[in-house]
Amino acid sequence: MSYILTTQCSDEIGLIAKITSLCHEHNLNIVRNNEFVDREGKRFFMRTEVTGSPTSLFLSQLQSNLPDDAQVKLHSPTKVKVVLLATKEAHCLGGVLLKQYENALNIEIQAVIANYPDLKPLAEAFNVPFHCVSHEGLSRTEHDQQVGDLIANYQPDLVGLAKYMRILSPEFVARFKDKIINIHHSFLPAFIGAKPYHQAFERGVKIIGATAHFVNNELDEGPIIVQDVTQVTHANNAEAMAKIGKDIEKTVFCKALQLASEHKLFINGTKTVVFK
Amino acid sequence: MSYILTTQCSDEIGLIAKITSLCHEHNLNIVRNNEFVDREGKRFFMRTEVTGSPTSLFLSQLQSNLPDDAQVKLHSPTKVKVVLLATKEAHCLGGVLLKQYENALNIEIQAVIANYPDLKPLAEAFNVPFHCVSHEGLSRTEHDQQVGDLIANYQPDLVGLAKYMRILSPEFVARFKDKIINIHHSFLPAFIGAKPYHQAFERGVKIIGATAHFVNNELDEGPIIVQDVTQVTHANNAEAMAKIGKDIEKTVFCKALQLASEHKLFINGTKTVVFK
Amino acid sequence: MSYILTTQCSDEIGLIAKITSLCHEHNLNIVRNNEFVDREGKRFFMRTEVTGSPTSLFLSQLQSNLPDDAQVKLHSPTKVKVVLLATKEAHCLGGVLLKQYENALNIEIQAVIANYPDLKPLAEAFNVPFHCVSHEGLSRTEHDQQVGDLIANYQPDLVGLAKYMRILSPEFVARFKDKIINIHHSFLPAFIGAKPYHQAFERGVKIIGATAHFVNNELDEGPIIVQDVTQVTHANNAEAMAKIGKDIEKTVFCKALQLASEHKLFINGTKTVVFK
Amino acid sequence: MSYILTTQCSDEIGLIAKITSLCHEHNLNIVRNNEFVDREGKRFFMRTEVTGSPTSLFLSQLQSNLPDDAQVKLHSPTKVKVVLLATKEAHCLGGVLLKQYENALNIEIQAVIANYPDLKPLAEAFNVPFHCVSHEGLSRTEHDQQVGDLIANYQPDLVGLAKYMRILSPEFVARFKDKIINIHHSFLPAFIGAKPYHQAFERGVKIIGATAHFVNNELDEGPIIVQDVTQVTHANNAEAMAKIGKDIEKTVFCKALQLASEHKLFINGTKTVVFK
Repeated sequence: MSYILTTQCSDEIGLIAKITSLCHEHNLNIVRNNEFVDREGKRFFMRTEVTGSPTSLFLSQLQSNLPDDAQVKLHSPTKVKVVLLATKEAHCLGGVLLKQYENALNIEIQAVIANYPDLKPLAEAFNVPFHCVSHEGLSRTEHDQQVGDLIANYQPDLVGLAKYMRILSPEFVARFKDKIINIHHSFLPAFIGAKPYHQAFERGVKIIGATAHFVNNELDEGPIIVQDVTQVTHANNAEAMAKIGKDIEKTVFCKALQLASEHKLFINGTKTVVFK
Repeated sequence: MSYILTTQCSDEIGLIAKITSLCHEHNLNIVRNNEFVDREGKRFFMRTEVTGSPTSLFLSQLQSNLPDDAQVKLHSPTKVKVVLLATKEAHCLGGVLLKQYENALNIEIQAVIANYPDLKPLAEAFNVPFHCVSHEGLSRTEHDQQVGDLIANYQPDLVGLAKYMRILSPEFVARFKDKIINIHHSFLPAFIGAKPYHQAFERGVKIIGATAHFVNNELDEGPIIVQDVTQVTHANNAEAMAKIGKDIEKTVFCKALQLASEHKLFINGTKTVVFK
Repeated sequence: MSYILTTQCSDEIGLIAKITSLCHEHNLNIVRNNEFVDREGKRFFMRTEVTGSPTSLFLSQLQSNLPDDAQVKLHSPTKVKVVLLATKEAHCLGGVLLKQYENALNIEIQAVIANYPDLKPLAEAFNVPFHCVSHEGLSRTEHDQQVGDLIANYQPDLVGLAKYMRILSPEFVARFKDKIINIHHSFLPAFIGAKPYHQAFERGVKIIGATAHFVNNELDEGPIIVQDVTQVTHANNAEAMAKIGKDIEKTVFCKALQLASEHKLFINGTKTVVFK
Repeated sequence: MSYILTTQCSDEIGLIAKITSLCHEHNLNIVRNNEFVDREGKRFFMRTEVTGSPTSLFLSQLQSNLPDDAQVKLHSPTKVKVVLLATKEAHCLGGVLLKQYENALNIEIQAVIANYPDLKPLAEAFNVPFHCVSHEGLSRTEHDQQVGDLIANYQPDLVGLAKYMRILSPEFVARFKDKIINIHHSFLPAFIGAKPYHQAFERGVKIIGATAHFVNNELDEGPIIVQDVTQVTHANNAEAMAKIGKDIEKTVFCKALQLASEHKLFINGTKTVVFK
């Protein structure tokens, strides 16, 4: 059986030796290892894929051998639980649903929640529960409360914003801290905010992109996870760019969920560490 | 013998028919044709590659058949003349010099002008005249005047800023209007201004890029010609990004000069039309 | 209303002028035009997007003005009809179904036909009729006959092989001549035939790809329409490559159908002409 | 001071722990570590970047702690010595010379050897010794002997074939075993052998590429190091493809030398392990 051990802590000399030696003592065979030291921030990150039977003794010894601030997690190969939020656009939601159907992502989509009913047939076509929570007549706080309660029932590992066209309240963000992944339809930090394809067209760029990022309280300012781009030309107006961009959005959003589901993703302050 | 006819004017019905029919009447065989109509701006752009012997009668008939604002140019297959400006960095300058040596660009580099002497050996290694015009002790206006006079002597078709790390005065920009091509070391409009790789590192982007653009009086705001990008990771600090970025800068700058030299480039207000 | 005129014929001087002048005479405004001359093969290809009301007189005059071998077609903006063939794998089929659902392709999927029942739920989730025609107990000729009869009932413009893992009989190929588009899971002509990802892994390539092509009677030898690639590493075994490759296959197959649906695709002997 | 330790040996449990623990005991701080286990071949590969002062005792202890077949090397930060072979084409040779001039590669080009005199001015422009060894009137064995003797005088770490258009004798390949890096102008294994761009044009591919690989005795069959590709269209004939391809060849060849110079490259039978 294969497990993934993720470690992050303040950096000091000998960390890799400590971790790998303990694995060896506990008869855990390392089949893949990635580490990164952020020398500026003096932080250590490691992802270790082992075969064997890690015990709770192993984990407690590991924790006590490492610096006090160490965050150690052992992930069994079960699927990562995700609730997806959406509005009306089908492409990102559909992309993830299809990937799950293909068995191409290590995730279980527990539910889709949207502020319009349009995507109900799509979710149900893939046998995923769909909840419509209209924002009509509700304050942002009230709406976020209702949506948040629905999400909380599922106890997901991740909340994926599959083109959820709502600004989130700080309370909502805090409630699902470090769990919310958004897809923004531009190559951040270019074209922050609304209508990025119109901005891109006006500026006459030759490349457009999309960005998946964790959500914090600054709009489009959270730690970036994945970005990708594609060429456009003078012949593409804003509508054409939006159409072209949908494929990139879909790909980038799925890629971010895949990285998260494989435990290859660490938040490092305002940035991420992503092991390939 | 092959010629390239470029046309731009306000759009109206029947322009392609007019131009191509006149070519036919004058026994000019069209071997390649590209056109674009900017429907918002109501502008028409066309690049026509013909074989045959275009006469001055052909050109005057063409001009009189088209709308009054038509800009018609016939380019013979002679090389496009370029003066390159640089400072201390070798990669963009060297990239163009090497491409010329390989005979891979339809350009003739007439001279290199720099505000430091460092790149003299590189220019001279490729037998290109090198002028150092130090900015020490000169006002921006005076320095631009001296550099401008040197350039003007060569009567170039284009002025290429091969990492020329000076802000240009409006007088200089006006003097070589629509002829100055700059390479900026970011994916514009992200990271305008100084130290874009440091900005990129601080933001934690996963892709960096470079942008070639025409220069106007707004810093890094001129019409974009070519952009390209490359992947970076959390393991790349600002210095590593700068090193990785140099290849993209070189490629993008050479590509912009190539497009200009093949008369595939039109300025359309704040944007460009680029035929591939 | 917008129409697309496609023309191909043997090349001669003045063809663009003839076609565009006739458009002008008939009050058809050209909003976009692409042409290509294959100088070796002496063939002319043109795609002309016009607004206005083309009459049958226009078409007959056009035909009589052009060389005898001219194939002229006028496409109204109706959707291109497609029947998809599949086996067991969901990704290419699902990709196209999802794109249709998003309204991102100018196609109407009339039916899905497969030699196994596995993909029935996927087709039906998108409200597309599904037919299972098992090959068990049938000769290739018999099976192709049954599948072909089913297809013929729909009178599709295109037959898309969405990972249809069967070799087609010459009779089947002839029956739907120039209409069958296949997706092959390698960067052709590398790794023709079975198990391309295993071949790629054995050879230790650093890039894998996919190829959409028209089908003729030589296995994987038909005219190539679209290709795309992605990076792999020494850490990817054949199974990992296959998983990574599915995204490329899906993208490339959708792109080929999109080009066909926008009438940007011409067969030119053993090659294609593709207007972007 | 920073050193790079490279290790390869047959795989067994606990190797990472052994190596990193010994580093720790010897006060070597690991700033970057990459490892790979080829599970099929049961081979272990590791590249470890350390700061500190590795002693000969460290190395002998390391060697004795590891399996008998272990190849352990400690690389000081001195430049990797390279002799380049060329024929008449300037782009790959010039690309590497320019990169060295920019100080962008950790290499020292000791000499250029060519079978024609054409590239003498280019090498000398960058102050690199040039030797012409004409193949006229010599058997392949004789020519390879003369070129090999010249190379041997320089005792290079690598021999780079910068478009050296000669087939090498088995003796020559054996003499510089595992040191010869070639650039082939196709996306191998497609279009092995002569005139790959003509083959690519005939096949009508939409993407062309280049491949850097170690040389063994099978033509174009050595372990692949780097590959890259670029889009082409129906409008590009073989000559245009060759021109477009030169940029990819240059980039891929430089990238392969860079990886080698940073000790990120391991030969694993018929394949390579490449740490990014």
